[in-house]
Parts: sequence; structure tokens; C-alpha cells
Amino acid sequence: MEFRIEKDTMGEVKVPVNAYYGAQTQRSIENFKIAQDINRMPKEIIKAFAYLKKAAALTNLEAGVLPEEKSNLIGRVCDEILEGKLDDQFPLVVWQTGSGTQSNMNVNEVVAYRAHVLHGGQLTDKDKFVHPNDDVNKSQSSNDTFPTAMHIAAYKMLLETTIPGIKKLRDTLAAKAKAFMHVVKIGRTHFMDATPLTLGQEISGYVAQLDHGLRAINNSLPHLSELALGGTAVGTGINTPKGYSENVAKNIAALTGLPFVTAPNKFEALAAHDAIVEAHGALKTVAVSLMKIANDVRMLSSGPRAGIGEIHIPDNEPGSSIMPGKVNPTQCEALTMIAAQVMGNDVAISIGGANGHFELNVFKPVMIFNFLHSARLIGEGCVSFNDKCAEGIEPIEANIKKHVDNSLMLVTALNTKIGYYKAAEIAQKAHKEGTTLKEMAVKLGYVTPAEFDEWVVPGNMVGEIK
Amino acid sequence: MEFRIEKDTMGEVKVPVNAYYGAQTQRSIENFKIAQDINRMPKEIIKAFAYLKKAAALTNLEAGVLPEEKSNLIGRVCDEILEGKLDDQFPLVVWQTGSGTQSNMNVNEVVAYRAHVLHGGQLTDKDKFVHPNDDVNKSQSSNDTFPTAMHIAAYKMLLETTIPGIKKLRDTLAAKAKAFMHVVKIGRTHFMDATPLTLGQEISGYVAQLDHGLRAINNSLPHLSELALGGTAVGTGINTPKGYSENVAKNIAALTGLPFVTAPNKFEALAAHDAIVEAHGALKTVAVSLMKIANDVRMLSSGPRAGIGEIHIPDNEPGSSIMPGKVNPTQCEALTMIAAQVMGNDVAISIGGANGHFELNVFKPVMIFNFLHSARLIGEGCVSFNDKCAEGIEPIEANIKKHVDNSLMLVTALNTKIGYYKAAEIAQKAHKEGTTLKEMAVKLGYVTPAEFDEWVVPGNMVGEIK
Amino acid sequence: MEFRIEKDTMGEVKVPVNAYYGAQTQRSIENFKIAQDINRMPKEIIKAFAYLKKAAALTNLEAGVLPEEKSNLIGRVCDEILEGKLDDQFPLVVWQTGSGTQSNMNVNEVVAYRAHVLHGGQLTDKDKFVHPNDDVNKSQSSNDTFPTAMHIAAYKMLLETTIPGIKKLRDTLAAKAKAFMHVVKIGRTHFMDATPLTLGQEISGYVAQLDHGLRAINNSLPHLSELALGGTAVGTGINTPKGYSENVAKNIAALTGLPFVTAPNKFEALAAHDAIVEAHGALKTVAVSLMKIANDVRMLSSGPRAGIGEIHIPDNEPGSSIMPGKVNPTQCEALTMIAAQVMGNDVAISIGGANGHFELNVFKPVMIFNFLHSARLIGEGCVSFNDKCAEGIEPIEANIKKHVDNSLMLVTALNTKIGYYKAAEIAQKAHKEGTTLKEMAVKLGYVTPAEFDEWVVPGNMVGEIK
Amino acid sequence: MEFRIEKDTMGEVKVPVNAYYGAQTQRSIENFKIAQDINRMPKEIIKAFAYLKKAAALTNLEAGVLPEEKSNLIGRVCDEILEGKLDDQFPLVVWQTGSGTQSNMNVNEVVAYRAHVLHGGQLTDKDKFVHPNDDVNKSQSSNDTFPTAMHIAAYKMLLETTIPGIKKLRDTLAAKAKAFMHVVKIGRTHFMDATPLTLGQEISGYVAQLDHGLRAINNSLPHLSELALGGTAVGTGINTPKGYSENVAKNIAALTGLPFVTAPNKFEALAAHDAIVEAHGALKTVAVSLMKIANDVRMLSSGPRAGIGEIHIPDNEPGSSIMPGKVNPTQCEALTMIAAQVMGNDVAISIGGANGHFELNVFKPVMIFNFLHSARLIGEGCVSFNDKCAEGIEPIEANIKKHVDNSLMLVTALNTKIGYYKAAEIAQKAHKEGTTLKEMAVKLGYVTPAEFDEWVVPGNMVGEIK
Repeated sequence: MEFRIEKDTMGEVKVPVNAYYGAQTQRSIENFKIAQDINRMPKEIIKAFAYLKKAAALTNLEAGVLPEEKSNLIGRVCDEILEGKLDDQFPLVVWQTGSGTQSNMNVNEVVAYRAHVLHGGQLTDKDKFVHPNDDVNKSQSSNDTFPTAMHIAAYKMLLETTIPGIKKLRDTLAAKAKAFMHVVKIGRTHFMDATPLTLGQEISGYVAQLDHGLRAINNSLPHLSELALGGTAVGTGINTPKGYSENVAKNIAALTGLPFVTAPNKFEALAAHDAIVEAHGALKTVAVSLMKIANDVRMLSSGPRAGIGEIHIPDNEPGSSIMPGKVNPTQCEALTMIAAQVMGNDVAISIGGANGHFELNVFKPVMIFNFLHSARLIGEGCVSFNDKCAEGIEPIEANIKKHVDNSLMLVTALNTKIGYYKAAEIAQKAHKEGTTLKEMAVKLGYVTPAEFDEWVVPGNMVGEIK
Repeated sequence: MEFRIEKDTMGEVKVPVNAYYGAQTQRSIENFKIAQDINRMPKEIIKAFAYLKKAAALTNLEAGVLPEEKSNLIGRVCDEILEGKLDDQFPLVVWQTGSGTQSNMNVNEVVAYRAHVLHGGQLTDKDKFVHPNDDVNKSQSSNDTFPTAMHIAAYKMLLETTIPGIKKLRDTLAAKAKAFMHVVKIGRTHFMDATPLTLGQEISGYVAQLDHGLRAINNSLPHLSELALGGTAVGTGINTPKGYSENVAKNIAALTGLPFVTAPNKFEALAAHDAIVEAHGALKTVAVSLMKIANDVRMLSSGPRAGIGEIHIPDNEPGSSIMPGKVNPTQCEALTMIAAQVMGNDVAISIGGANGHFELNVFKPVMIFNFLHSARLIGEGCVSFNDKCAEGIEPIEANIKKHVDNSLMLVTALNTKIGYYKAAEIAQKAHKEGTTLKEMAVKLGYVTPAEFDEWVVPGNMVGEIK
Repeated sequence: MEFRIEKDTMGEVKVPVNAYYGAQTQRSIENFKIAQDINRMPKEIIKAFAYLKKAAALTNLEAGVLPEEKSNLIGRVCDEILEGKLDDQFPLVVWQTGSGTQSNMNVNEVVAYRAHVLHGGQLTDKDKFVHPNDDVNKSQSSNDTFPTAMHIAAYKMLLETTIPGIKKLRDTLAAKAKAFMHVVKIGRTHFMDATPLTLGQEISGYVAQLDHGLRAINNSLPHLSELALGGTAVGTGINTPKGYSENVAKNIAALTGLPFVTAPNKFEALAAHDAIVEAHGALKTVAVSLMKIANDVRMLSSGPRAGIGEIHIPDNEPGSSIMPGKVNPTQCEALTMIAAQVMGNDVAISIGGANGHFELNVFKPVMIFNFLHSARLIGEGCVSFNDKCAEGIEPIEANIKKHVDNSLMLVTALNTKIGYYKAAEIAQKAHKEGTTLKEMAVKLGYVTPAEFDEWVVPGNMVGEIK
Repeated sequence: MEFRIEKDTMGEVKVPVNAYYGAQTQRSIENFKIAQDINRMPKEIIKAFAYLKKAAALTNLEAGVLPEEKSNLIGRVCDEILEGKLDDQFPLVVWQTGSGTQSNMNVNEVVAYRAHVLHGGQLTDKDKFVHPNDDVNKSQSSNDTFPTAMHIAAYKMLLETTIPGIKKLRDTLAAKAKAFMHVVKIGRTHFMDATPLTLGQEISGYVAQLDHGLRAINNSLPHLSELALGGTAVGTGINTPKGYSENVAKNIAALTGLPFVTAPNKFEALAAHDAIVEAHGALKTVAVSLMKIANDVRMLSSGPRAGIGEIHIPDNEPGSSIMPGKVNPTQCEALTMIAAQVMGNDVAISIGGANGHFELNVFKPVMIFNFLHSARLIGEGCVSFNDKCAEGIEPIEANIKKHVDNSLMLVTALNTKIGYYKAAEIAQKAHKEGTTLKEMAVKLGYVTPAEFDEWVVPGNMVGEIK
């Protein structure tokens, strides 16, 4: 490979001749040879940086501390980054400095040097028209830019991927709940037969879970909407022009179309990332819900002949490399694996959040890496589960009916007529003798056949259907 | 010990002759010999049951399905439980059936048999005036009472212990932030010297963290205010009179003085406990904040002679059994241990929440056990930390001044005057030669002594003080 | 309450007149009002301290630094503690200083003052014959005694409760595996019908899990057998006589009958508790196994009429307060709740272990609290599950046979005869048309009826039975 | 893109015309659109499959159930996979079926179709010379191949990356411990000044931690060396030739040069992955150790002027985009972030391990994904930390001396001379009056100046140096 020489405050560094990045990026590549092929800084963070660098250049221009030509050049490169044209210029990994300084400098260098080229210069020029620190990073520090990028990336991911994915699944389940609201089936508690409910009622519980989960995510958005930018090095805003915090937040809000505001307390915004911890707590709650829902779906569809078999889900692929004709609830499996991952990510994030010290939390990259991972997995996992499984859920009426007809727990309807103890006697003896409730109830003399038929009606045991 | 014979639907059981509980409680004692001396069902759950049993008896009376005499007797016993008069009648442990049925029956038995005694009967009477299932448990199931008790206990603990504890600490820190708002000190990022801020600003970040934590807890209250009661066995409300759900929630709200409502979806309320998962996520966020705050406090107070030593905290006790005169930041240690516990409890709760199946989650006891543990530890831990540590925080001005005066990072103020690279050169050379910034800045010819004194003023580097 | 005055290096403190403890214990009671009724320092730690204080007194006597009379008195009080006679003298909670200094001093005070009384003195005497620091704590520090107590308590709990509990369950399951080794049943993968195996084979997998778990626990014992005692304040052994470390470890080994040795590196033994982290990792692995086993048992026993119903487990108690005659797999539920708790405890322990700093980890109490909790829950949980559930497992032959006979996955036996694709066609069409494999196989012309009967024999599909 | 038509048992599928994979791979691409750009099945799993497919082909040849030509062709393609020539043929993600069936079929298809081409055929041929199921997958199931691949990949990663990485760091620290064994410095407990030790002693504690961690990892290898292969669908070994399990394990051992054996219990090997849980528990223990070590290093090197500043670590890169001349402990930050990630991954793995059901755990991909991630991060993280930080650790003698000279805790040496209480009085008064220990000791009349100089010698307080 051919190289050129770049310089930072520590001296000269050889960088690939055509790379837009410079000395500090190169140092990081060499200093952090950790999972370089699998753990790059998430692209969503790079794009978030593009928004904020453009917004900062604009705000600096408005404040009169950056010339228009430089501001425009910076903006143009940021647009190129947002268009994906410079994707290969951001090679750094998550496992770097905990402030994300190196990724901030990676962006500063690429923007400065690409701007220099746009301005007619050469990458090999010793002096560049735009300076990474003095121009691109003007009125900024890694310590306020990286957390700002974290919030932009997190907020966007939640809005564009996570929430729509959950909603899609929620709406499908709501439609299924409605469609199956009169399909009376046996209930199960402790895995054991219980009193009946309808399949629609059962599914309505899942809908309620997701509605609550969406509410919990939405509750976490205001804290995420607060941006650290303007706090610079330690939260005091050193080296920023007057009004900068508020103005740069407005510019970011305008560029992204999202309701970002400047954080009322910049010290918290740099030193802690409780907004990420809190919001991921909501994601973890959704993961818990999804684990429950997916487990139910796969158990209800189990069989085909030695399981519960009350619902059918789509046959998407051959399920076994050895057992011919086998089909498995694979979407449930992907979703429950995602739930496990999110629950693990939650711990990584919490540990990162708890271990910030003094003016700066230096677990920023690992926190946002896990956050974006979870947010995306939930969003895309819900869509996959929805499209390839939930939409195809159908009741298997024959099995449902058989299970209701055989159930001993219909005896519960007799509690208010003959008392719990006599009802228990009926159920226990019917179970032991392998007979029906009705036969045993009559045989024991507690009810007449007519009373039984009047009182024990599964369809009357499911409450008011809404 | 003397015994009497009690009966349930499975047959006869010997119980201690003076115990108010009966056969099912006794079975549970014998069937679950697990940590019986240390893991009793939390007393808060028993008291929550007292509220709900009383409310159910009232509601059953209003609905005309329970006679007034029985309803009144039930209410009287519930009052006794709330007054703590029957504390020794609830011997069951957390590690029982996952629905909490045995604790529900423990309450049903104690209420029924104590009511029988209040009514003039004897514990040894074969038939009791009030029946555990048919009267005390009327219109109820374990499956809706236990989650109702979970929400009542959780909500009350948050309101009575957790939130006031956090608020107390928050208010003390806010007062400290105000008091020390003009104490200029060195900032630290990555544990390394950074630009200055004030001690008040630093502490204001902690206040912001706790404010956000309180908001997060408050956001979780509405879901916790939803009560499962009325769903009975599987959520359908079998064996409840008309209007029961709404009415019993109103009665519970009236008895507790808290804004409880009936859960709009009873299937979710029995089968999932996402409200507990979500609310504990907020507690975990607070734990993360407290770990950060307590770590800062102990590091800032470290020394007395070989540490940072910028604040003094109260000397509460001799710190060492071998090192005479040693004093340690013990309140910080208790609080960070609590934070670790809460972060662990969060995982236990999430796993419990994720593994509910069909119509019932059967990890109820372990979930509420961990929830109440965390909620109490945070509340009482904050009060202890507040009273014995935070209130006594005072700056050690001499050390603070020394650190500011020596700092090389004041050079940051020169960025906008001479550029980042020249400023770096000054700092690096001053560090290498062990001299001051000013000497080096002048020596390198980048600024005059007068310029340095004008531009590099720590007190001007802390931004606008609010 | 009546009080007397005690003194420590910070001054005078009022303590209950009859308490054997003194000033420092009392300070801790007042300084840490956190969960005082539910989170006392585990009694196993107090007993471990009794062993080590006695061993230290002996070793000090042997080294000629403590008079025989004092050594004997100390040993006598330690014996009283081990006999449980002084249980009410240890009121401190887990949430105290992270070094456990206050519990060490609690023991020092109780031993000293009780020794003084045994020696004929009065609690109200200003000077005591035995001094908490200079005599009872001689050649010790909290920093080496508390971790020593942790290892003693952990090791004993594992040996006396955890391992025997797991073994008991393991042996029962091994007997069941043998008894049911020829009961051919349908296999299930992905919750879906698969090729057959025997019930004994299935259960043998659980046995293998527990055997591996026991091996993992045993692997962790050597690190736990290393004692910190002799390291005193920071690991250097300041203020200990020559040979003390080795000798005191020998004395502890002799007193406990367990193979304790002095830790080769005392710095690690004070500053880190990786032995606890590692050993609890083994406990967590067992928890993971138990969750799997208990889940299988409850699902295999589900029904009685709308579940899988292939095994019967004992009916231990009425399962429902509303559904008469219901019986639930309650032991499975207790055990899976325990598994969730242990998995949560693991996180608390890991966070504690990771956050030690410099010469001392100050998360000692929370780490051992969680460790002992898990170790006990697993041990007692296994015994409960064993006695009340596993021992009673019996196959329900009729259901087992029905499931095997109906299975479509028996078609797998034809792979090697007619190829995977044709076999799949048979299974798919039989499923669609609701017919048997044999009918469809013959109808499609791939096999003759005789071939089918020869090739597709469930009993031949379970491999070699060992 | 151009397509060709491939078929599986469910029908026809369009696949890219030049892809070596077939219908089932393509179905998975379309069915699981989840994080496809960032969460591919780890390449280590694909390579492990190459070993096992080659070994299976050899074993099938030896058993006489696969012709030599096919066996050879399969082996040749596996070699190509191991050489990395077919890397782009494995596009599937982690979030697929929980058995990994689709990745097994991906390998089966690529091997079969590439073999067909090597045999002279065309990808567009309707019939291929080698069949994915009947030839490549012969005597196998996904259910035994995927866990076999998990163990091969995990074992190799531990041996090739994790253990060497930890050892490298361990050896560097051991050398540093030796080099600095006589550098007397102040100890710190609770972040507070304590009695002295040497820098070498302090570092020797880290070495002991890593030695124990290496032992823990090694303890987990035997379970990982057990291979599931030969269990096929449910552990019974259906459709395998006699002796297959043992022989295929031998062939894998020969090909990999690692001591793999056939799992004694195949039911456990398919249904549970406790070996992964257990081994990752060891990795988590190492993560806990690394967090401790890296935290110490960054705090000891903190400053340069307002921190502890007792060691110097290498200046690797400019630390701040705004604070000129700042250098940060970035390798410590990367390593502690890795520790947080591994602790999170541990939870994901445990949840996956706990939720296997019946004959198959279907959290296989998420478990091995997290395992390989952790194992690699630890290995590469240790190397990075070693090369760029640990190797450069040097004491800053001036600060070390200053801290020792000032320390009040040297008073501990007087305990055995004048008693703990008088020693405490000296330290407390010296602290209050800001004077030296010696001055105060003499002033209080407890020692003479000569005694003090004789008794209080830091170099004599560090015990026996080994």
C-alpha cells in the first residue's frame, strides 16, 4: 500500500495515501487491534456525527466564529457521509478510548481532508484548508459530541426501526385478537388445564403487553432528546460562543426533523448516560414481553401430533436436516434468542453506565453499541416474526374443541352453586376414574344432569367479550 | 407441640393447635423447606393482601354475594393484620408455588379462622363460621389476588420509602450544589486532569441524575396502579359478580389512599408482570446513578494524604481494626453494594418476567421479593447515605486550589487564541520540563505574560453559573 | 432500655446494658439503618468468624504473642458462638462498610466482652480483661479476616448443603433413568415431534448435566480453600508473628476438618474475590441446568387432559384457590424461581468482584451474602424438588404410547432406505391428509407394507441402550 | 441479478446463479432479515463445520456408507472453506432457527454444489452428484453438528486467542512485579491511605488473578472437548453406522490437532449447553479480574498533577479533541468496556442455556455468538492492553516517595508497641493538626524519637519479599 505522512500533536504518522482520515485515526487502528472485522463503530453513530458536525458548522457560522466557506465545505462533506459515500473512511472499532474521542477525530479528519479536496486541494498537501480540530471540531469536544451522537443515533433508531417494528406486530396481534375473540379454548395456568377463555382474549394480553412496552419506550424519549452539545470538555461550555448550546440543538433538530433540545444540565449529560440506561430498560421490558409471546406461540403450535396443537403457524422452511417433513417455529426461536441478547446487553449497558467517574463516563462506545444492537434487533425481529409467523396464525379448531370438551376445570363454574369442596371432589374423582365431569357430578348426587348442562357452559365462562 | 386437625380438599393435616392458619399453609411449610429462616414472603405482601381481602369482602357485600356479618368479620381481621397483630401467622417462604397460591391460602385461612374466633368459635371447631375459599376468597383467585398484592405492595413501597429517600438525598445535593457553586476546581475526565468547573456544577450533575431517576420511577407508576383483581382464574373474571373489577379497585383505592384502578386487560395482568419489570428498570437506572455518585464522593474524599482529597465527608466510625485512626467512606460502600444488588435483582426479575406461559406467570413470588428488596434498599440506602455522608460534604479548599493552580489543562483557554496545536505544544513541554504553563507559553513565544494572565483565568473557564 | 457506656477510638457510645457487643457495633447499628429486619449478616459468616478467631488465638498463643489465659477465653467464647448461644449478639446488616470491618469488630467486641464476663468481670467494667483489637483481633485485620470468613462459610455451605442437595437429586434421577430406560417415547425438538428415545435416556441427560455441575463446583473448591488470613491490612502481613499465615490456616483446617491452606498470594486474596466469582459461576451453571430440568418435568407432566401428560408427578397440595381439584407442578416452580434468583445473584457478585480497587475489594458483604444465598437455595431447593417431586416421577404409559404411535417423525428411519426427499414427501402428505405414515408410504409406492413394518420400528430407533 | 432454480422438500426457490448455496440458504436469507450486515454467523463456526463435515465424510467412508469419490470431494471443499476461499457463501445470520439448522444446511449445500462443480458439473444442473442431505449430512443432524461446531469453535478460540492473550499479559505483569518488587509505596484500602506495600507486590496480585483465571478456563476445557456428533436427531444416534460417534470424534481430533472425544451422554450434549455456560463463566471471571486490573492501572497513573500519579503508562495518542496535550489511559478504557461486554454476554448465554426444552436447546446460535465474542475480545483485548500499556508501566518514584513519607497509616507499626488505641490517638491528632506522625507521637509522650525511627520504617512494613 502507498502511504502519505500526516501529523498530529504527537508527531508524524503514515496513513494510506488515498484515505481521507489522518494521523489520529491511523493511530487508533494500530493501537486497538481488537475485533476489527466485526465490531466497527456502528454506522448510525457516524451518520449522527454527520448531522452534528454540519449543525455545529452552521451554528459557528451564525455565531461569527467560522467563515462561510469553511462552514459550507463542512456541510457538504457531512451530506456525503449521510449519503453513504464515505462509508469506508470510518474503520475504527468500539474498543477504543471510552470517550469515543478517536471516532470524533476520525470524523473531524475525514471532514477536514475531504473538504480540503472539495476545495481543490490534494490529500498530500501538508497544510489543509480546513483543520480537524480548529475548524471541524470548533466549539466542540469529544466529550459533548460523542454523547450527542449517541442520543441522535438512539433516538432515530427507536423512531425508525424499533417502534415501527413493535407496532407492526402489535397491530397484527390486535387483528388476530379480534378475529379469534369468540374461539373458546381451554386456559392453562402452571402448564395445567384451567378454566376456558377465548383465543382472542389470550392474544389480547400480548397486545396489552406491547402497548405498555411502546408506552415505556416513548416515556424514555424525552431524556434521549436532550443533547450534550455545548458542554464541550467538562460541561462548562468552555470555548463556545454565546447561545451556542441552544442554537446547535435547534440546528440538529431542524436537520434531523426530530425534537432535540439542549440538555438542561451538561454535567449530567457528559458524566452519566442514564438516558441510555433508562431507555434500554424499556427495550429490555419489551424483550421480556417478546420472550413470553414467542414462547406461547411456539407451545400453542407444538405438535403436530404429540403437542398442544391449538394454533397453526406458517411453514417457512424444512425444519430438519435429518427428519424429513419436519417444520419448526423458527421465527419464535429467532425472537427468543433476540430477547436473550437484549437482556444480556442490558447488563453490559448498566455496568457501563454505573462506572462513569467525575466529569466523564468513559464507557460510551460499549453503551451505544449495545443499545443500537438491541434497538435494531427488536425492531427487525418484530417485523420478521410478524411477517413470517404472526400474520399466519390460525386456530386449529378440532384440537381446541377437544381440549375444552375434556377439561376438568369447567367444574369451577359449580363453585358458586355447590361450594369449592364438593366441586373439588367431583374433579378429583372424575380424574381418578377417567370419566367426565358431568357423569361424576351426577353420580355423586351434587347436581342433576339438567343443572349441569345449564351451569357448566364453556362459552359462558369467558366473561364479557369486548 | 400440640396439634389440631384441619382439612382441605386433599384431606387432613395436623397444624399447631394455636395457629390461625390451616391445612394448606401447613402443607406448604412441609413441602418447601427452603431458606425458611431468611426468605419469608415479604411482610409488605401480607399487608397488601389485608387491604385486598377487606376490599373484596366489602365489594362482595355491596354486590349481595356475601352477608354483612361475614364481610365485617373479614374486615376486622384484615385490620388486625394491618396493625401487625398477626405477624407470626404467615410463615411461608418465597420459594413456593409460582402463583403465590399458598400465600393467598395462608391469608384466606388466617382470616377465616381468626374471624371464626372473633365470632365466638374455637380453632378446634370442625366447621368454621367463615370459609377460606368460599367466603374470604370469594370472587377471587390466587391468580388475580397475588398480582394485585404485588402492585399494592410495590406502589406503596415506592411512594413511602423509595421516592422519599431519593428525594431527601436529591434535596441535600441540590443544597450542596448551590452552596459550592462558586468553588472552582479542576475537572477530571478519564481520571486525568481536565479543564476546571465548580464543585457546585459537579454536584448539580448528580442532582440532574436523581431528578431523571425520580421521573423514570414516576413514569412507571401508572402501569403499577393497574390491578388484576377481578380477572380470577385466567383473566375472564369467572365467578365474579357484575361490576366487581371496577368496584373492588375503587375500594382498594379508598382503603389505601392510592390511585389504583382496574387493569384494562386482565389477561396481561395475570400472564405477565411487565409492570414490575418496567418499574424495576427505573430502580436499576437509579442504582446506576447512585453507583456513579457514591464512587465520585469516595474518590473526591480519598486520602487524607495520598489521594485526591478535595472534599471532606463525616467521620462516622473507626475504619479499621488494625490501622489506628483510619476513617473510610463507609456510606459510599453500602450504597455501591446496594447498587450491585439492585443490578443483580434486575436480572432475576427479568428472567422471571420473561418466563410466564399461557394464562399465568408463575415467577410471581421471586419477582416481587426482588422488587421490594431493591425498592427498600434504594430508599433506606439513600437516607443513610444522606444523613451520614452527603449532608456533611464540605470542600477542602487548600487541596482544591492546589490542583487548579498546577493544572496543565488550563491551556485549553488558548485554543481560540493560538490554535489547538500550539496550545498542545505548550502543555506537552510544560509537562516534560515540570514547569508551569505560563512559563512555557511565554518561553515558546506564543503569548506575552500579560496575555496569559488575561486569557487563562480558571474562574472564567467554568461558563455561566446558574 | 438500659444502657452502659462503651468507648472506641472515636469516643463514647451508649450500648444496651446487657449486650456483649460494644461501641463499634452500636455505631454501625445507628449508621446503617438499612433493611435491618431482613438483611442481617448471614449467620454462616458469624460462625466462620468463630472458627477463625479461635484459630487465631491458638496461633497467637503458639507464637508466644498472646497469653494462654486469654487464648483459652477467646476459644471458649468462639465455641459458644458455634453452639448458637450468642446468636442475638450479631445485629449488623450486610449494608455496612464494604470490608466487613464492622462485623469483624462486632465479633471482636462480643468475644472480648463475653470473655471478660467468663473471666469473672462485669459488662459495665470500664476496662475489660480481653481487648477487642489488641487481643481478639491480634495478628489480624478486617481485611484478611473477612475474606477468610467468606471462604470458610462458602466452602462449608457448598460441602454441607449445596453438593449433597444436588447429589441427592442426581441419584434419584439416575435411578429413574435406569428404571425407565426401556420406555420408548416420542422425542421433541423445537417443541415439535421428533424421532423417539426412551424416557430413561431423556432423564439420563439431566443426570449428565448435574454430574457436570458437581464437577464444576468441585473445580472451584481449591481456590476457595485459600485463606487470606495472615495478610492483615494490605496483604503484607504487617503485625503478624513469623509463620503465622501457614499456622493459622492449619489451625482453621483442623478446627473445621476442611482442607484450608494459606493463600499463596495475599494481595490477590484481599483485593479481589475471584474465587467467589468463579465458584458462583459454577452455581449459576447448576441453576441453568435446574431450570432446564424443572421446565421439562413440568411440561412433560402437563395436563391432565389438554397437555403433554407423559409423566405423573406427586400431588402435593391443592393447586388453586378457585379451581377445585387442580394440582400444579409447584416444586418445579420453586426450583425455577431459585434458578432465576441465582442468575440474578451472579450479576450482583460479578459487579462486586469487578469493582475492587487497589489493595482491597470493598464489596465483600454483598458478595458473600449473594453467594451463600445461592448456595443454600440450590442445595435446599434440590432436596425439596427431589423429595416432593423427582422421587415420584412415573411414566403415564398410555399417553406415551399414543404419542409414539401417531408420530410422523418415525419416517426418519426411511432416510437410509429411500432418501431424505421421498421420506419428506411421505411425512408431508400424511400430515396434510391426516393419515398414518404407513398408509401414505405404501400409497406413494415407496415401500411395501412389509418393508415399512420391518424398517419403521420405534424401539429400534433409540440406539444402543446402556 | 441472475438466478437459477434450486429445490428442497418444500419446493422451488430462486437463488443467485453463481451462489454455491441452494434453496434452504436462500429461504433463510429471505425469512430472517435481521441485522444481516452486522450479525453473520461467526466465521469460526463455518470453519468448525468444515472440519466436522470432512471428518464425517471420512468416517462414513470408513464405515462403508459413503463412496470414496464423494468422500474425497466433500473433503476437498471443506479444505477450500478452511482456506477461506468460499467465505462469501455463508450469508446467514445468528437470528435464525435456534438449532442452527439453516447454517448446517448452508454448509451442506455449499459443500454439495461446490463438490458437484469440482466433479465437473454445473451449478445449473438439476441433479447434483453430491446431495446436501443424503451425502454431506449423512449420519448427521443439525442437532448434533451444530453443537459439535460450537465446541470446536469455542475450544479453538480459547486455545488460539484467549489463553495466549491472557498469558501474554500475565507474563508482562509478572516481569513488572519482579522489577518493582522493592519499590515501597503507600497501600490504599477503601481509596484511603493504608500501610505500605511494594509496587511489585501490588502487581503480583494481578498476576495471581490471571493465573487463577487461566486455571478456571483450563478447567472448563474437558467439557468443551466432548462432541455431540453421533447423537443425530435426538441423541439416540439414529441413522448412524456402528462405532460412528467414537470414530468421527477421533477424526475431528486428528484434523484439528485437539483432544476432542465423543460426549459420553448425547442427550445432554444436544439438549443443554452447560459446557458453554460453564466455560463462559470462566471468561466472565477473567473479565472481572481485568476490570479490577485496568481500573487500578488508570487510577495509579491518574494526573498528571491532580491525581495519584504513581505510575506512568505510555502516551499512545492525543487524548482530547479540545484539551491540548491531554493523554488518557485509553487501553484501560477499552479493556474495561470489554469486561462490561463479557459480563453482559454472560447473561445472554445463561438465559439461552436455561431455556432449552426436551431433546434440544434452541438457543444455540445466540450462545455461541456471545461466547466467541467474549473469548475473542478478552484475548485480543489483553494483547492490546499488554502491548500498548502494560509493557510500558514505570513507577514515578518522586510521587511514590512523597505519598509514603506523608502517610499517617505508618502508625500501624506502633500497635504492637503501644496498643491500637494510643496509636489511633497519634494518627488522629497528627491528621487534625496537619503535622507528622513522629512529631505527634513524641509530643504525646508515647515514644521517643529514636524509638519512632526504629519502629516506623516503611521498608520493614512490607513483609517478606519473595
